[in-house]
Amino acid sequence: MRKVDPEKHAAKRRLILDAAIACFSRKGFHGTSTAEICAEAGMSPGNLFHYFPTKHTIIAAIVEEERQETAEIFRKLNEEADLLAALLGFMDTVLDLAGDPAYASLALEIAAESMRDERIGILAATNDAELKASLAALLREAAGRNQVDPAIDAEGAARWIAAVIDGIFSRVAVDPGFKPKEERSMMRRLLGRFLRP
Amino acid sequence: MRKVDPEKHAAKRRLILDAAIACFSRKGFHGTSTAEICAEAGMSPGNLFHYFPTKHTIIAAIVEEERQETAEIFRKLNEEADLLAALLGFMDTVLDLAGDPAYASLALEIAAESMRDERIGILAATNDAELKASLAALLREAAGRNQVDPAIDAEGAARWIAAVIDGIFSRVAVDPGFKPKEERSMMRRLLGRFLRP
Repeated sequence: MRKVDPEKHAAKRRLILDAAIACFSRKGFHGTSTAEICAEAGMSPGNLFHYFPTKHTIIAAIVEEERQETAEIFRKLNEEADLLAALLGFMDTVLDLAGDPAYASLALEIAAESMRDERIGILAATNDAELKASLAALLREAAGRNQVDPAIDAEGAARWIAAVIDGIFSRVAVDPGFKPKEERSMMRRLLGRFLRP
Repeated sequence: MRKVDPEKHAAKRRLILDAAIACFSRKGFHGTSTAEICAEAGMSPGNLFHYFPTKHTIIAAIVEEERQETAEIFRKLNEEADLLAALLGFMDTVLDLAGDPAYASLALEIAAESMRDERIGILAATNDAELKASLAALLREAAGRNQVDPAIDAEGAARWIAAVIDGIFSRVAVDPGFKPKEERSMMRRLLGRFLRP
């Protein structure tokens, strides 16, 4: 029996996901064939199949990776002394990601695919629920420290922050004049005033 | 030559648009055939064709109607004494529309079609540009009256209000717990604090 080297396996998986992300950003999920992902990754279809038997499993892995990265970001945010500043810093990161054309088009592809494919929809809804739960937990802790308004409903405010994040990505898609990386001060005015005591 | 009675013509057009809106909300643009719109409107394909030669022209008419309705809303808003209160009242209307399942699914259909069909995309972009221009004009006038912060950049703030509107419709699509009609006070906290001097 051939032994699997976990590090090599992870590196190969990473290579495929990066190749797929590049293809999906350029041509969308439905416009990308597995042959193109193989060409981008420089590997054979048989080899790719060994890691991801279908295009669907690649998309699912990308959405799952997004979930893990968000969880990791919030673990770090919660260690900050000023949680409102930490949250606004997280929103700076959101603006940077929305200002990255490859990331923004991938995010819109995932949103569109969530409507078309129920399995992807469930994964995306899980990510959304976890993001809201992380935001609400951070807001509750911040309220306890009087860094955000203790009177604010944490779950309700988390929903609106999620709405603002959705809106940022939507603006990128519909409004060429909206440059996320130049919008930090307006974002801080909107969310800073919203949350402050 | 047959004379066209403008009132009858307008009534028939209205009947078709309402039938099409009902069909599109239920089954989407691509899931709806012109035969189904005829059945819903209770008229023959030949008769429908006389008013709208293609399904595309029906969608375009719905988007154009949306533009006219928004323009009319802003004409009335600008007559109010308190323009910030008027703007927040407009946002109550947006929440009510987002809370109407038929309207919300039609809005999402139009957004999706804007990506697929360039002609619809141009119409939707025109509506978006007009909405932002109307919001910015209202904010400038309100700033002159000190009803909103005179230091705020009106165009920039209008973009963020448009982002919040996008976000509201996106939340309806992805988050079953988001009930727009129950969100008036959070919306007022978010946008009232954002705009106030």
